[in-house]
Amino acid sequence: MNREKISILFKDIQDNISDKIKSATGQNYLEDKWNYGSGKGGGRTRIFSNGDIEKAGVNFSSLSGNLSEKISNKIKGSGKAFFATGVSVVIHPKNPFVPSIHMNIRYLERNNKRWFGGGIDLTPYYISKKDIIDYHKKLKTICDKYDDSFYFNFKKQCDDYFYIKHRKETRGVGGLFFDNLDGESTENLNFVEDIGRNFSQIFLTFFNKNNSIKFSNKEKKFQTYRRGRYVEFNLVYDRGTLFGLETNGRIESILMSLPPTSEWIYNWSPEINSEESKLYKFLKPIDWLK
Amino acid sequence: MNREKISILFKDIQDNISDKIKSATGQNYLEDKWNYGSGKGGGRTRIFSNGDIEKAGVNFSSLSGNLSEKISNKIKGSGKAFFATGVSVVIHPKNPFVPSIHMNIRYLERNNKRWFGGGIDLTPYYISKKDIIDYHKKLKTICDKYDDSFYFNFKKQCDDYFYIKHRKETRGVGGLFFDNLDGESTENLNFVEDIGRNFSQIFLTFFNKNNSIKFSNKEKKFQTYRRGRYVEFNLVYDRGTLFGLETNGRIESILMSLPPTSEWIYNWSPEINSEESKLYKFLKPIDWLK
Repeated sequence: MNREKISILFKDIQDNISDKIKSATGQNYLEDKWNYGSGKGGGRTRIFSNGDIEKAGVNFSSLSGNLSEKISNKIKGSGKAFFATGVSVVIHPKNPFVPSIHMNIRYLERNNKRWFGGGIDLTPYYISKKDIIDYHKKLKTICDKYDDSFYFNFKKQCDDYFYIKHRKETRGVGGLFFDNLDGESTENLNFVEDIGRNFSQIFLTFFNKNNSIKFSNKEKKFQTYRRGRYVEFNLVYDRGTLFGLETNGRIESILMSLPPTSEWIYNWSPEINSEESKLYKFLKPIDWLK
Repeated sequence: MNREKISILFKDIQDNISDKIKSATGQNYLEDKWNYGSGKGGGRTRIFSNGDIEKAGVNFSSLSGNLSEKISNKIKGSGKAFFATGVSVVIHPKNPFVPSIHMNIRYLERNNKRWFGGGIDLTPYYISKKDIIDYHKKLKTICDKYDDSFYFNFKKQCDDYFYIKHRKETRGVGGLFFDNLDGESTENLNFVEDIGRNFSQIFLTFFNKNNSIKFSNKEKKFQTYRRGRYVEFNLVYDRGTLFGLETNGRIESILMSLPPTSEWIYNWSPEINSEESKLYKFLKPIDWLK
């Protein structure tokens, strides 16, 4: 697969997502262009903040270099030279009725190995079962265009990956997670492109539906508390974050995924039958489409 | 060394510290007694919150059990059976002019190996150089009673340990960090006891001096932002936290060290020559007593 072409495509997906968020929210983003210090290439970090989108990063990067000894043994393939390009989006809305969402598509080369990876997952605070089902249906529709096994496999991998072991909770209500998809396949490129192209619509469905709901301090506080779980997952388990920290990546681009605010309250749990308690029923692997 | 005796001593140090904080702040603590699910023993977690002490944990534990395969290779000694007792304190004051502080003393046995570990370190938001020097002088005075090399060695180990590699900053202004001190030595027991007994006075010096200083939203926000670094250190690097998460320790006792609130602002840094910028000059290894 042609590196350049994929980079250009991914860059266009970043443009598309940032434009759609801009139109829907009226917020503009701050853009930082950066160079990859230890090799060639770099990225464009775009940040929305201080509006209905309390904090979001819509990032593109395309870079090549040599893997360090330490990292070299941790990832697939052999040899030190690598190339990586990807789009990574994390949105933390202000309104607790709008879920946080994350999407990533990436293409990697190492020697003569090349592969795609990525996924999308949803982290709600207050949400109806119906909205989760609709979201999973959309993901299945995208997947089914390419391979009947994709949704089932990638949904399971998402549940496995976004699991906060020490809390015995999934980070959110899942979605798709995939890695090691053949990087020579045009079908696979079309698949990751499709995820990137559909992302805005998936997020904006939630945003447009719920952003005007009035929320109380109690609801904001619950969102802030739950964002603590997001921090715990990203700093303790997320391979992308830890890889970035170990490879001396651009720290502000790596940690842009962290929520704007978070809170830790000792031994807190929601009251029985409260609106907050409903979320906890969803924080495990569930077959949403059965 | 007699396990029981050390446990009783450590428990008394926990009582002493929680009583002193209670008297100084007028706040009472919430106590949770817990049993170690995977073995014998347990602990007493004591939490101060919602007052001048915005959040603090003063913990005691004494437990024995068998190390898992995974953990077994990561720590000193051989064999699966272990015994561990310790006191661990983390204080996050409300007022940004009062520093956060952490202290830990512990005793471990594994087969016929036994050793002491622990330390104390300070994480200020606004602080004068003089106050840092006074704090280090106190630590040196304690150390010098036992061994001329202690302060120098343990101060260096503290700088090395509490280093946030991805930020190129130390977590705070250091203190003492030690491990693998001979667990058969009464002198060493006296040393860790001395640290435990002196802790309240060290913290309360800062608290009594600065807790009545009026602070602005800007100053509170800076503290909240800097607390993000505390979270980053504890979840990415702190061996005690990661050990606790991997050994299925009591999660709320392990994560009590996290600050009550924190904030991540994309690419933020203090204005040049601002009060906030002064802190950054201290966040590296400095020979305070030269």
